[in-house]
Amino acid sequence: MTKPSSNFDHDHLISIADLSINDITTILDLAAYYAAKLEAKADLSNVLKNKVFLTLFFEDSTRTLTSFEMAAKRLGGQVINLNLKTSSLNKGETFHDTITTLNAMHPDGMIVRHSEFGAPKVISTMSDCPVINAGDSWNEHPTQALLDALAMRNHFGKLEGLTVAIIGDIAHSRVASSNMKLLTKMGASVRIIAPPILMPEKLPSENIEKFTDLKSGIKGADVIITIRPQKERMQSALIEDNTYFDDYGLSKEKLGWAKESAIVLDPGPFLRNVQISDDLADDTKQFHYLKQVSGGVATRMAVLDLLAGKK
Amino acid sequence: MTKPSSNFDHDHLISIADLSINDITTILDLAAYYAAKLEAKADLSNVLKNKVFLTLFFEDSTRTLTSFEMAAKRLGGQVINLNLKTSSLNKGETFHDTITTLNAMHPDGMIVRHSEFGAPKVISTMSDCPVINAGDSWNEHPTQALLDALAMRNHFGKLEGLTVAIIGDIAHSRVASSNMKLLTKMGASVRIIAPPILMPEKLPSENIEKFTDLKSGIKGADVIITIRPQKERMQSALIEDNTYFDDYGLSKEKLGWAKESAIVLDPGPFLRNVQISDDLADDTKQFHYLKQVSGGVATRMAVLDLLAGKK
Amino acid sequence: MTKPSSNFDHDHLISIADLSINDITTILDLAAYYAAKLEAKADLSNVLKNKVFLTLFFEDSTRTLTSFEMAAKRLGGQVINLNLKTSSLNKGETFHDTITTLNAMHPDGMIVRHSEFGAPKVISTMSDCPVINAGDSWNEHPTQALLDALAMRNHFGKLEGLTVAIIGDIAHSRVASSNMKLLTKMGASVRIIAPPILMPEKLPSENIEKFTDLKSGIKGADVIITIRPQKERMQSALIEDNTYFDDYGLSKEKLGWAKESAIVLDPGPFLRNVQISDDLADDTKQFHYLKQVSGGVATRMAVLDLLAGKK
Repeated sequence: MTKPSSNFDHDHLISIADLSINDITTILDLAAYYAAKLEAKADLSNVLKNKVFLTLFFEDSTRTLTSFEMAAKRLGGQVINLNLKTSSLNKGETFHDTITTLNAMHPDGMIVRHSEFGAPKVISTMSDCPVINAGDSWNEHPTQALLDALAMRNHFGKLEGLTVAIIGDIAHSRVASSNMKLLTKMGASVRIIAPPILMPEKLPSENIEKFTDLKSGIKGADVIITIRPQKERMQSALIEDNTYFDDYGLSKEKLGWAKESAIVLDPGPFLRNVQISDDLADDTKQFHYLKQVSGGVATRMAVLDLLAGKK
Repeated sequence: MTKPSSNFDHDHLISIADLSINDITTILDLAAYYAAKLEAKADLSNVLKNKVFLTLFFEDSTRTLTSFEMAAKRLGGQVINLNLKTSSLNKGETFHDTITTLNAMHPDGMIVRHSEFGAPKVISTMSDCPVINAGDSWNEHPTQALLDALAMRNHFGKLEGLTVAIIGDIAHSRVASSNMKLLTKMGASVRIIAPPILMPEKLPSENIEKFTDLKSGIKGADVIITIRPQKERMQSALIEDNTYFDDYGLSKEKLGWAKESAIVLDPGPFLRNVQISDDLADDTKQFHYLKQVSGGVATRMAVLDLLAGKK
Repeated sequence: MTKPSSNFDHDHLISIADLSINDITTILDLAAYYAAKLEAKADLSNVLKNKVFLTLFFEDSTRTLTSFEMAAKRLGGQVINLNLKTSSLNKGETFHDTITTLNAMHPDGMIVRHSEFGAPKVISTMSDCPVINAGDSWNEHPTQALLDALAMRNHFGKLEGLTVAIIGDIAHSRVASSNMKLLTKMGASVRIIAPPILMPEKLPSENIEKFTDLKSGIKGADVIITIRPQKERMQSALIEDNTYFDDYGLSKEKLGWAKESAIVLDPGPFLRNVQISDDLADDTKQFHYLKQVSGGVATRMAVLDLLAGKK
């Protein structure tokens, strides 16, 4: 298997909006390559040899942080996890000075999660090294959208022409935001399904259809992405778990309303019997969540390699 | 020095009960080999090259976590420490889904400490990679029993025929539990010495003798293992520190009741002048605690190699 | 570029007081060598291959910990970060036993930060491996003084004959303490400028001049080091931020009182408009803070190599 050639001319990965169709295809091709290499337990430790990445997670995370760390280490890179809850920030240093200080240590990349909208973008303007957005507020989570796209492409062989329905707390979800941008760009038809109170005011594309009714929203869908109510980003509890399941939770029975070949994705962590019934959650044929997780490591390997690997 | 050949056919290390006499000998032989290699400062970085381990410590630990991390890194492996206190668990994800998510990132092993009895076993049923029990509640701590056995074998040349007395909070101790299983299996005579309130109701073997009196319990013993009162696992304070030392604390003087050649082990952390007097704690000829710690790294190297090394 | 030969005969780096003029020159020469190698993105991963360092930070730190970790990893070393806030210390183990336990795992070095004066020295007496003081109370922070010296030497080509004024909370600053020792030893003229309440009672050298007036203190200075009020080490707030800036804060205008070629250093984190005005903080020609940070990684690489590298 030959490594796909790439022509990826970006310094950072901040937003799906910055990526062309070619860029996205480049990332997905390389991700598929790395997925196969991981499957074959190939020695990839030379790809990011001598590279040291900083993870700047201003918000707690287990899965995304571990996935990035796994990706870097599989490629021979090193990772320094900063404990930003107990950092010098509380000694009165400005955010700008914290970032330029870290940048002056010349890391080979910074992987940033932040609760403030746009923080990774701001950090990228202060840094000489690649900055990767690992999720900022409800703005963007580009590697999640890329790994979701990889899961869809792996199953259907393409993204163009697919009908993708995103259910749930669209208003507060950076995953939904990045997915809407990526999928419309790649020629998929996108629908969002949410209770009015969780429906966003502005959408990234005019071609996105809005539904408040689950049944009509998923009719004919190839892919359904469920999005957890992001209670940590709501001012107050906008919804009740049990009502939510009745109206917007997915079960094997309700999935029958979509195409017979439909698959379900979720960025995780997912709430059983709030977003997804147990019977569906445990059906790996239709619920591709674990494939997303596996492909997520390969996707992040591709991103790290394209931004920080030897060029 | 040739690496001992091994015939170790286990996917996980959950309990001493799962190991045969041959398995235990295999681990101890390889541990002794790695101890000698460490002593010679040999380059072992190829043994676990490209292997990435997750540490899942749901309970705080310094020594065991550091020992495993040192073992992996001495063999060229990488380690990702998960911060499970701040994980997605509190976003409503089930334990099962957290574990299968981590497993889907395809680590080469998971090292698990958990406050719930049996959790590592449950995790092993959800995982494709080796799971190593680094201590679960008062159930088992198999690598501790193995490193204790290594310390005994290093000193006496054998385990069979030794008389081993375990003093202290047997009821709440996973170390005592694993040691009783291992030592009876390997042909040692095992005695336990505890105040009635800290005496376990069930014992893993019929051949274990119970004593409430220290003097008669350690008479003729080759090895004495002291076990700290596990206050964090008691419903309420069952014992007082000063009374405890009078009745069950060990000093050089009381050690005279055992064989003249007797050695003392402790899994640490140990409480001076509660479990062990200062004069004994500082006598490295009789108190082999630091030898246990050093051998612990070698023991964990052996376990990691047998479970995750190239076969 | 040839690696400078070294004749560095120390087991630990605890205090600047332990270093000769030759030792300091050796460290700075090697630091300059590593700075050039980093600039050239050279592969240095063999220097500390198979070396595993423990970081024992009993006080929070972001920059120093990250800088040491970066230094070790750039040289191919491995790092184990101990979480000492949640360690066995609170299970009743003595400090001595915690340290000897870690030492028995045979790390290749321990990097220690502690809030107690002299703790790294005590640890070094209990350890077989190199111990590096990464800051202890208001006693010493030797690698900070070394990286400050590197920044001065890079700019002026020498240390001898320079006039260095240190402004601020000298009484509570380990950085000022280490700098006073290093600079007087290397033939610089040292002045300290502080309000009476933050002036130390004892000074490490008789040749240090004391000033309470900023203007007369920085007159003719080549280098000015600003030191943050160390509120975390004051019994109560001894100074007010706004008064402080009027009397001891530095601006571009006040810097005019020093030599025209003067540069300003700060160990960071620095407080804008308390210690340093925004206009000065953002002038990288005069404020060499980021050069200090970059040189700090190279300085720590030199120290780790000299103490733990293959000899």
